[in-house]
Amino acid sequence: MIDGHGDDVFRYGGNVKVNFSTNIHQGVDHSGLMRHLASCPRLLSNYPEPEPVSVEKKLSETIGIPVDDIIVTNGATEAIYLIARKMQGSRSAVVVPTFREYQDACAMYAHTVRFIPECEVLNGAFVDLKPNLAWLCNPNNPTGRVFNREVLLNIIDTCSETLFVVDQAYADYSVGDVLEVSDVLSRKNVIMLQSLTKQFAVPGLRIGYAVAPSEIISGLRIMRMPWSVNSFAIEASHYLLEHRKDYSIDRYQLHEEALGMSKALRRLGIECQDTDCNFILCRLPEGNASQLKEWLMHRYGLLIRDASNFETLDHAYFRVAAQDHESNELLIKCIEEWMSL
Amino acid sequence: MIDGHGDDVFRYGGNVKVNFSTNIHQGVDHSGLMRHLASCPRLLSNYPEPEPVSVEKKLSETIGIPVDDIIVTNGATEAIYLIARKMQGSRSAVVVPTFREYQDACAMYAHTVRFIPECEVLNGAFVDLKPNLAWLCNPNNPTGRVFNREVLLNIIDTCSETLFVVDQAYADYSVGDVLEVSDVLSRKNVIMLQSLTKQFAVPGLRIGYAVAPSEIISGLRIMRMPWSVNSFAIEASHYLLEHRKDYSIDRYQLHEEALGMSKALRRLGIECQDTDCNFILCRLPEGNASQLKEWLMHRYGLLIRDASNFETLDHAYFRVAAQDHESNELLIKCIEEWMSL
Repeated sequence: MIDGHGDDVFRYGGNVKVNFSTNIHQGVDHSGLMRHLASCPRLLSNYPEPEPVSVEKKLSETIGIPVDDIIVTNGATEAIYLIARKMQGSRSAVVVPTFREYQDACAMYAHTVRFIPECEVLNGAFVDLKPNLAWLCNPNNPTGRVFNREVLLNIIDTCSETLFVVDQAYADYSVGDVLEVSDVLSRKNVIMLQSLTKQFAVPGLRIGYAVAPSEIISGLRIMRMPWSVNSFAIEASHYLLEHRKDYSIDRYQLHEEALGMSKALRRLGIECQDTDCNFILCRLPEGNASQLKEWLMHRYGLLIRDASNFETLDHAYFRVAAQDHESNELLIKCIEEWMSL
Repeated sequence: MIDGHGDDVFRYGGNVKVNFSTNIHQGVDHSGLMRHLASCPRLLSNYPEPEPVSVEKKLSETIGIPVDDIIVTNGATEAIYLIARKMQGSRSAVVVPTFREYQDACAMYAHTVRFIPECEVLNGAFVDLKPNLAWLCNPNNPTGRVFNREVLLNIIDTCSETLFVVDQAYADYSVGDVLEVSDVLSRKNVIMLQSLTKQFAVPGLRIGYAVAPSEIISGLRIMRMPWSVNSFAIEASHYLLEHRKDYSIDRYQLHEEALGMSKALRRLGIECQDTDCNFILCRLPEGNASQLKEWLMHRYGLLIRDASNFETLDHAYFRVAAQDHESNELLIKCIEEWMSL
């Protein structure tokens, strides 16, 4: 999907004052990383590695897994498209509502796609359907829900003929128990997606990775075009992994903020789904999320995510991610103002 | 192809003193661009545009063509893979020796590939073969040869059932007459590839584009994954196009240098092909290019391109690109030393 993603700050020039539309925490100081990048003129004047093998090596050492079990990609998005291509023509199941790219990548490679509502995953929907490929976002975007780890592993083991793609891009924002790398590497039918984008709050760079048994990873590597990850993304990955202790996101504090926002929004009559993360899926009692979005943006420079284009959601849905307390309070006040117009 | 490209500076830590292995001019001052990038923290903290439409718009204005006739990609390489995919299963012809990615992209998408020697292009090889898709690099890498424009256009018009991909990434380094944008847009069977990488000497960024009639471009856009071009590449493109007058490459002076180098190398008994560019394809009278490369690198920090892995070339071929006069003289002296060992 090209239009309709969140974090569409680029549409509004310099007019966004607070960006609630992205699930990625906005309060990270990147000045050290930027100084480091600016000190490396070769990032402009030399080709990057054709494959980002130096990042794969460093990540594998950081995580403590063999380098053959990891592939670094141009954002997790490239991994999604590589997997869809590898499994061209599959019967795929996508747990919805969710990130749109699973479905789009499947459509591009002639999959037959069935949607499974999030609430039915733990009720055996996969067991009945027996898809070749299953896409789950965990925690899920836009709901913030984390699937119970034991139950999810049990489903994965029961459906041994299904390849599960578990996108854990938002794991660092979650207070729930997501899958461990060891859960993935001890099985033959799971690929875990991850994203430095989210972990270090650097979505502009496009750097993600997939972890899976080496037989799966080698099949993806063969299809990756050379130089898909540019020099800035490669250099930044090294810097971020070396300085990762400086980048800890306080997921508990952000989750607390999100719970506080949910409470305040519910008081206004807005439905809020229970979340395990920093972001909340909300539904207006009346009116359109797109109108609320435009009003908040043009009146106050506050950007939210119109969530009406997620599969199974309607015009009334929007998504917000907790920022600092003061900004969150401002948002609630402004939404209240809009509702009283 | 993952291994075996030129500009493999990343292999040698900081030990490369002069890089003759890339065709891209190394004498460009990027300090203004780097300062500009470092002044934009949002390049890290916000998503890029899902499609680099702002760059497409600016490029179309700069070139003076409709925006629908241009697609900006993650290096020209992404355009090559998109075209190969769009034409999946084609009978393709690749003019060789040449850049390896045409052949690799064709292999990835189940094309039947026939190689046409560069010297046979103007002799009607395409007319006999009638491929669905023809790949030409113009000027060609590694030979530096530019095809006669009138004759090439005549071939394109004669083979009206063949789609020609003419990669003009090195056009700004050429003293020959390459195709004009109007040559491409007045026909239905040509795609021209171009690269900001080469034009502005920024290969680390990965930014290229294709120009073709809108019917072709729209077919490629549909297959491009979102966010394939990252924020640094997008921002740099805007800066470079705005400051393009500061980035003029003196192709005539570089070509003069290349001719001087050819003369000196021939005096040593090395075969040098006639070039229209800044780079030269050379063949040792005896010994291996790979040995010469390693010796030059480890003894003097001079990096050349072992060209033995180009289709139809053998172990004796290497490629060098002219740098400043003093460095070029040093290289000749060092090659002479190696030959006398």
